[in-house]
Amino acid sequence: MTVGELGEFGVVSRISGRLPQGATVLLGPGDDAAILRAPDGRVVVTTDMLLEGRHFRRDWSSPYEIGRKAAAQNLSDISAMGAVGTGLFVGLGIPADLPVAWLDALIDGLRDECDLVGASLAGGDVTRSASVVLGVTALGDLQGRSAVLRSGARPGDVVAVAGSLGRSEAGLRLLLAGLSGFDDLVEAHRRPRPPYREGPRAAALGATAMLDVSDGLLQDLGHICAASGVAIVLDPVEAPDDLAAAAKALGADPVDWILTGGEDHALAATFPSGVVLPSEWRIVGNVAEGDGVQAGGRENVRGGWDHFRG
Amino acid sequence: MTVGELGEFGVVSRISGRLPQGATVLLGPGDDAAILRAPDGRVVVTTDMLLEGRHFRRDWSSPYEIGRKAAAQNLSDISAMGAVGTGLFVGLGIPADLPVAWLDALIDGLRDECDLVGASLAGGDVTRSASVVLGVTALGDLQGRSAVLRSGARPGDVVAVAGSLGRSEAGLRLLLAGLSGFDDLVEAHRRPRPPYREGPRAAALGATAMLDVSDGLLQDLGHICAASGVAIVLDPVEAPDDLAAAAKALGADPVDWILTGGEDHALAATFPSGVVLPSEWRIVGNVAEGDGVQAGGRENVRGGWDHFRG
Repeated sequence: MTVGELGEFGVVSRISGRLPQGATVLLGPGDDAAILRAPDGRVVVTTDMLLEGRHFRRDWSSPYEIGRKAAAQNLSDISAMGAVGTGLFVGLGIPADLPVAWLDALIDGLRDECDLVGASLAGGDVTRSASVVLGVTALGDLQGRSAVLRSGARPGDVVAVAGSLGRSEAGLRLLLAGLSGFDDLVEAHRRPRPPYREGPRAAALGATAMLDVSDGLLQDLGHICAASGVAIVLDPVEAPDDLAAAAKALGADPVDWILTGGEDHALAATFPSGVVLPSEWRIVGNVAEGDGVQAGGRENVRGGWDHFRG
Repeated sequence: MTVGELGEFGVVSRISGRLPQGATVLLGPGDDAAILRAPDGRVVVTTDMLLEGRHFRRDWSSPYEIGRKAAAQNLSDISAMGAVGTGLFVGLGIPADLPVAWLDALIDGLRDECDLVGASLAGGDVTRSASVVLGVTALGDLQGRSAVLRSGARPGDVVAVAGSLGRSEAGLRLLLAGLSGFDDLVEAHRRPRPPYREGPRAAALGATAMLDVSDGLLQDLGHICAASGVAIVLDPVEAPDDLAAAAKALGADPVDWILTGGEDHALAATFPSGVVLPSEWRIVGNVAEGDGVQAGGRENVRGGWDHFRG
């Protein structure tokens, strides 16, 4: 059956039926608006627009993976503020000939990624579109913590990363080349695994600046440099074995992937130098006076993704 | 200049520069996420997806009008819960050849509509798209009031409407027919004027159910009937002079427009029969035992808009 055969209200009702609402939700789908708890008295909000052909391909990713990824990239932004996700809202444009089973799997992916942080897919909108379009908005609660902005890094701080880097880019390159044998990397492209808990944890540990690495480490650390008025000097980078092997097979440089690859949704943060970091965080450099990111002569490599120029 | 020439970060920076942030915003655009005040401890959230060619046409509406309308339809949903809008978030897909001046005007329209309720356009996302796509999310605060749902109508309640009905549909029909001479109606299609203040006011007056009339009065009151387990009996409807004149010119029935036309974003609410209503509210019927909307034999007219079947 297609969504066109089901009709708009059938689709909405079917989606709602797949969405148990968690403790953060006071009113879920079905009214003019949803109501979420905001116990902190402040609400953290981020939104992303994802387009078929540009941000995902239906022939490369399953609908379940697309759903997980769409939720992950927004919930990771919430985590990068030091907050915990509470609710997700999805505006959805879909073709009338889309199989209902495809839509079901997309919704399940969104829902299951929300489950990882205790958030709920609590509302949305469905309309007809020539291709699949998702407008995803995530909300989060700071639980009394100070938000960690991009602007608080100070010379002398250490720079640390939680989560993986370069693996999504490697997976994308493998898919583009049609090269098999590196399933973990392809899986990393299809479904990022943001270290959600590390955002609030870093905030509690006194992180001075933090962000979600979505456009490449060099470019994203550059945002911290610009917002904080500092320089960041990266330590030499070493590629894990599977990343090095995939790069060799493709004739690419794995360090470029690590420094400029996007979409892994690692967290990068700066901490006062005395802070003892949990093992999930690895120190990758330090903050200095000056401006821009220095990476052992690599600071001039292509600096990540521009949606209009890329 | 086009947005492609300006580049993604140039576009983001240009948009942010047009957006002063109001008192509800603790952190505006520029970080991983924005932070809004949520003083009530509950946050009301709604989202809509708007696609060029389906929800608006660039040759029929100016970018400023498209921005106002996109904000209005979401802020009206917030009002229909009895809440006051605090922030708007917009995911934006735009073609690389879009003139920057068009984008400026769209943002100004979104911003100016937010101003009407004291909300701010506090964040967003920009990506490249073949046509213009907007994913709009609005947040609101209940200010201590109980939310007014669709499910609280009781037999004996009166049904009342604030705001206009059928005027947007009339404007659309006039545009489709290329008929001039009814500027007010065309303007009503291009830019709805939701009665924002009446939502919180109705909540304070004890409204038992309320919603935003976006898909046509009959269809939307049907949602109250279904959610509340009641029937609604509408009084005979009379068309205002200009609506009647436009309908005559097009050979149409103005009462059909009033009962089934969408996008005016009036508020419809039910109130206990004893409540004295302010002049902004006009009584249009009453709530009875049973189910469905009865409108003097017109209950079988086309019941509003289905995005997959319409």
